[in-house]
Amino acid sequence: MEMSSLTQERKSAQFDVEAMKIVWEGSPEQVQLTQRIGQLVANDAVFRKDNRVSQGRLELFKNTLRKAAHAWSIIQSLHLTEAEASKLRSFIDEPAYTDLHWGMFIPAIKGQGTDEQQQKWLPLAYRQTIIGCYAQTELGHGSNVQGLETTATFDPSTDEFIVNTPTLTATKWWPGGLGKVSTHAIVYARLITDGKDYGVHAFIMQIRSLEDHHPLPGVIVADIGVKFGNGGYNTMDNGLLRFDNVRIPRDNLLMRVASVTRHGKYVPSGVPRQLGYGAMVFVRKSIVMDASNYLSRAVTIAVRYSAVRRQFGTQQGKPEIQVIDYMTQQSRLFPLLATAYAYRFLGVWMSWLYSDVMARLERGDFSTLPEVHACTAGLKSITTSTTADGIEECRKLCGGHGYLCASGLPELYAAYVPACTYEGDNVILLLQVARFLMKTLSLLGSGKKPSGTAAYLGNAADLLAKNCQVMKERDWINPDILQHAFEARSARLTVKCATQIAAASNQEAGFSEFSSELVDASRAHCELIVVTRFMEALKKEISGRSVMKQLQTLCYVYALSLVTARAGDFLVTGYLSSKQLDLAKGQLRSLFRELRPNAVALVDSFNHSDYYLGSTLGRFDGNVYENLYNDALKDPMNASPVTEGYEEYIRPVLKQQLKLPNSRL
Amino acid sequence: MEMSSLTQERKSAQFDVEAMKIVWEGSPEQVQLTQRIGQLVANDAVFRKDNRVSQGRLELFKNTLRKAAHAWSIIQSLHLTEAEASKLRSFIDEPAYTDLHWGMFIPAIKGQGTDEQQQKWLPLAYRQTIIGCYAQTELGHGSNVQGLETTATFDPSTDEFIVNTPTLTATKWWPGGLGKVSTHAIVYARLITDGKDYGVHAFIMQIRSLEDHHPLPGVIVADIGVKFGNGGYNTMDNGLLRFDNVRIPRDNLLMRVASVTRHGKYVPSGVPRQLGYGAMVFVRKSIVMDASNYLSRAVTIAVRYSAVRRQFGTQQGKPEIQVIDYMTQQSRLFPLLATAYAYRFLGVWMSWLYSDVMARLERGDFSTLPEVHACTAGLKSITTSTTADGIEECRKLCGGHGYLCASGLPELYAAYVPACTYEGDNVILLLQVARFLMKTLSLLGSGKKPSGTAAYLGNAADLLAKNCQVMKERDWINPDILQHAFEARSARLTVKCATQIAAASNQEAGFSEFSSELVDASRAHCELIVVTRFMEALKKEISGRSVMKQLQTLCYVYALSLVTARAGDFLVTGYLSSKQLDLAKGQLRSLFRELRPNAVALVDSFNHSDYYLGSTLGRFDGNVYENLYNDALKDPMNASPVTEGYEEYIRPVLKQQLKLPNSRL
Ligand SMILES: Cc1cc2nc3c(=O)[nH]c(=O)nc-3n(C[C@H](O)[C@H](O)[C@H](O)COP(=O)(O)OP(=O)(O)OC[C@H]3O[C@@H](n4cnc5c(N)ncnc54)[C@H](O)[C@@H]3O)c2cc1C
Ligand SMILES: Cc1cc2nc3c(=O)[nH]c(=O)nc-3n(C[C@H](O)[C@H](O)[C@H](O)COP(=O)(O)OP(=O)(O)OC[C@H]3O[C@@H](n4cnc5c(N)ncnc54)[C@H](O)[C@@H]3O)c2cc1C
Ligand SMILES: [Ca+2]
Repeated sequence: MEMSSLTQERKSAQFDVEAMKIVWEGSPEQVQLTQRIGQLVANDAVFRKDNRVSQGRLELFKNTLRKAAHAWSIIQSLHLTEAEASKLRSFIDEPAYTDLHWGMFIPAIKGQGTDEQQQKWLPLAYRQTIIGCYAQTELGHGSNVQGLETTATFDPSTDEFIVNTPTLTATKWWPGGLGKVSTHAIVYARLITDGKDYGVHAFIMQIRSLEDHHPLPGVIVADIGVKFGNGGYNTMDNGLLRFDNVRIPRDNLLMRVASVTRHGKYVPSGVPRQLGYGAMVFVRKSIVMDASNYLSRAVTIAVRYSAVRRQFGTQQGKPEIQVIDYMTQQSRLFPLLATAYAYRFLGVWMSWLYSDVMARLERGDFSTLPEVHACTAGLKSITTSTTADGIEECRKLCGGHGYLCASGLPELYAAYVPACTYEGDNVILLLQVARFLMKTLSLLGSGKKPSGTAAYLGNAADLLAKNCQVMKERDWINPDILQHAFEARSARLTVKCATQIAAASNQEAGFSEFSSELVDASRAHCELIVVTRFMEALKKEISGRSVMKQLQTLCYVYALSLVTARAGDFLVTGYLSSKQLDLAKGQLRSLFRELRPNAVALVDSFNHSDYYLGSTLGRFDGNVYENLYNDALKDPMNASPVTEGYEEYIRPVLKQQLKLPNSRL
Repeated sequence: MEMSSLTQERKSAQFDVEAMKIVWEGSPEQVQLTQRIGQLVANDAVFRKDNRVSQGRLELFKNTLRKAAHAWSIIQSLHLTEAEASKLRSFIDEPAYTDLHWGMFIPAIKGQGTDEQQQKWLPLAYRQTIIGCYAQTELGHGSNVQGLETTATFDPSTDEFIVNTPTLTATKWWPGGLGKVSTHAIVYARLITDGKDYGVHAFIMQIRSLEDHHPLPGVIVADIGVKFGNGGYNTMDNGLLRFDNVRIPRDNLLMRVASVTRHGKYVPSGVPRQLGYGAMVFVRKSIVMDASNYLSRAVTIAVRYSAVRRQFGTQQGKPEIQVIDYMTQQSRLFPLLATAYAYRFLGVWMSWLYSDVMARLERGDFSTLPEVHACTAGLKSITTSTTADGIEECRKLCGGHGYLCASGLPELYAAYVPACTYEGDNVILLLQVARFLMKTLSLLGSGKKPSGTAAYLGNAADLLAKNCQVMKERDWINPDILQHAFEARSARLTVKCATQIAAASNQEAGFSEFSSELVDASRAHCELIVVTRFMEALKKEISGRSVMKQLQTLCYVYALSLVTARAGDFLVTGYLSSKQLDLAKGQLRSLFRELRPNAVALVDSFNHSDYYLGSTLGRFDGNVYENLYNDALKDPMNASPVTEGYEEYIRPVLKQQLKLPNSRL
């Protein structure tokens, strides 16, 4: 019997896949958890997802409600832990109101409520006797949170806040879970008391009756309509919300940071606002982990299919060439494979960063906050942009068949791409990084040493002076060389921006004029962090036959593919010569050759089940064509050999029996 | 009364928009045609399209059949010309079987059928008493047409071809209009006679009964399933097709180029195969025109919304900053605006190229074919890739609201992006350009002068020797400087590839090893062509107040944004210094400032109606928020205040009344 392409690929792999799975998941226990919960979901017919792309919006949404209820009953009856429950929800693999309830509503209460408030609301939320969402964005304001228009005016005569939507643009717009499901919402509104506007604060509000689910009096709430793509966020009821002078008790203001007295005096609690930043680091860490997860799924599909797909180059009855053997295919695909690994190690490091920040906050040490804030903002931005583009690239790498939903990639993209927008527009985030970089440079003069991920800027003089030392291809295979290259690129772009801004009429005008250049510098800073974290991670011991070797190859592929992709940056700053760039390209090609026999095993190591991938092209067994064909025949469109609509709209055309209308031109 | 943002924008425009519309459309008559047919479609309720994103696949498809029938009855009753009919179909703005019938089936008969065959089949096709499609691609072979597996074996005993699908991978897969509608198909199959395989030929075959539309005996035909995105190609019945030894008369072979005698002898007709290349140029010209059309629609939406959208920078009650005023926004948006114009002029030039090629072919002059073939292949590739990416970029430029289907951009992307794959995978096309470039260089030695778009390579010595002469920002505003820069970039990258390949062990190995670099060189060659055609077009007279000035600004924006985006190419070849690159960036920023007050008027000049745009964000009146809000309330999801599924799946959760299943972990 002939061996399938993928079997052959797996035989040629040079490392221990099971050991790599443990590296990817973090521990043998995590591998088991994935296996266990993954199978639970895959084997439950309620969680079927292959039919969702042919469903209309209403059917799709209703089915998501069904899945969420079913998941909740499983979680309760099996007494799953929080970690297990969250794994279960993520394997169901579609956006749902529960994401916001568990991921934003509850954390907001924890982070912004007093102990009393937590005791009041959390038990209800944990049991889901109330369901909540996070209502910040308005029709007119997303990025500019300080510009939100909803008001909450304290009325001392009744001891209540009056929450109001004064304009059309003040309508809450986008919150997930809001449109059709949530009974409660964390509402951001301008706190006004004693005639003074204290800016945006968080309130907890009931919006629907707990008896019949109707919106409460004075509340308009609805779904905002269809969103991008197949499935995707169409399983979610992103909503709109308006208040017509709705009254809520004073203590519905979440009061960890500030409260209002019975007589309307605004009183800061003394708890520093900065405490909230820990939550932001946590969210961004999760986003980076998600990026590595989504990218790894797309790459799994594209790598496996590229090994199955053959095109051109038949020689005397021998099979054609596997498209994964084309250099153009490799140079688009392998860097993405390496990036998935890079982001995983980055995510692990961000978990450490989160605990470090939390420990510092607890002892009142806010010193690392600006650096951590900038670093995590930038990492959110570059990882989500790269992942979104990477998913589409993987789809294109699958040729025509990638455009079929059967490839799994259209749904993956639709569900992922808004990550470039929510939790901060990716360009605006890079501009925040740029502000930090400019500030850091300006403080260098006064002797303030930058720390953490910005420490290298303290070394700017050397980085500006010393050019790349590479003389031959193999010289690139060196962490010190790469570290220096990425530091020099970032430092040089940053210093150049600072110089240009300094020459402008004023600081703000200069910042605005050179903001595209600043974005480039910020990207350089962030990519340096990713490269550094990947190289650092490989300094620790990692077990398993040849696992370390594969990871090193991936790490160099990641770094060198960035060097060639950002060649302009390295050249314009005079750091690299054209010759050195050619050496980098040559070395990268050698690395592709090393990676090639291990490519399929490296995606197997992500341990994604066929159910989770939801892709005929990415099947573990590589049996692509038979399954494409059989699944097509089962499509609802093929329920009968003659299509619905034939009698009304096709036969009359063919038989020249169309009724001609009386249109006028 | 306050003036709306867009009214204000239109007042500040500095040129004659009506005159620009004529430039864009090509003539006043074309402007009128657009107006006339555009309104006809917009005012006809059958052509409503705002509901298609919430429909399931079956409903969506049936509705497309309805539109196609309705359009056909209008075309007949109003006796529309071919040009009017095709405009009508394009304004209906969704892929349908008619695209293939009129765009591929009929042209294939014209191009590959003998006069007799044309007389037999064309009248039927013109009246749509038969409906046809174009069945080339198979499950296992798309790019590699020569590898198709379907066979057509001549049987002299009955004077018939026996058409057969010998394997699973030989199943026809993808042809539009095939799955549910077509009665006939142009089928590509290997012609076998006298025991010899003569390679792939085109046959015309009936696949469904003209009486009851059932597939004919021995024919399996079906839809291949759901495709990427909202709407998009889901209105199309891309299909699969298998033959179980189906017999067709000998003269169903399209015989323009070759025929088979009654006794099975294969006889080339003497008509050169090259004649078919004219059709290819025509198709690629249309693709480039489509690119400019799609990109212009996306840019219209993003420009208008960016002028309406305000975020940050409130000062004492004054409105916030229009996001179009942010430099990062401009530097992503304005180059795309310029590109839409660039592609329009390119398309016009390709129309000329098409007639030139046809005239040559008629007099047996095949000398320009290789150059034209490479040039059009490359232009198809870069314009479709840039347009697809550009649509997504426009969507992201609209922030969160761009992700709503109400922005119109998700549908635009879904319908457009397969253009990167069909009519040739974009990477494979660039590799074809690369082969031509390598060939051209290799012939230089033997004194063969390259012509047409490759003529500059005859000048390679100078282009390699002379670096950029720019000394100050304004120097960049010079067609000669730009021409030289783009020629030098392309020539240098091409020569470098040739040198690298020459050093390889053998030609093919070298070509494969350096194929990524070859793709870069090909892209440079094609971008040079676009820049050149844009600059050439502006050498002719163009009337209308300040219209020429605007076009010049756009042309420079196009060229300089490419210089900065491809900085690596220009730097690595030593052609540009870092300083000169900075000057280019500085000049580009000045151009953005010139463009800014005209941006809205420049998209108004595309003359897209609100119906055609199908975008709340891109409305002509700029009344974005009110319409987003009102449309959302009309969404089927909001038919009742309490969602379907509440009783079954939400209430039991809230009330702790879920039935717990007996799941096992
Ligand atoms: C799927 C999805 C789910 C969401 N879920 C929630 C939720 O649960 N709760 C919630 O409250 N919100 C939610 N949101 C809203 C989301 O947080 C916002 O859409 C996001 O913050 C972006 O803001 P915006 O839409 O206002 O973009 P805008 O700020 O309007 O951006 C438009 C353009 O302007 C540019 N721009 C704006 N300001 C500047 C500047 N200062 N400098 C340079 N450029 C600028 C941007 O780069 C962008 O190109 C969701 C959004 C989506 C898409
Ligand atoms: C919406 C849509 C409509 C279509 N309509 C029709 C139709 O009406 N009729 C019809 O006959 N067909 C149709 N097609 C099919 C279409 O023509 C093919 O999908 C297209 O030609 C690409 O071929 P492929 O899918 O085999 O890609 P593949 O060749 O399988 O490409 C897969 C990957 O391999 C790479 N690759 C392949 N060969 C090489 C090489 N030699 N060197 C380097 N890289 C290589 C590609 O770059 C790509 O990344 C349609 C397709 C789509 C998506
Ligand atoms: Ca300047």
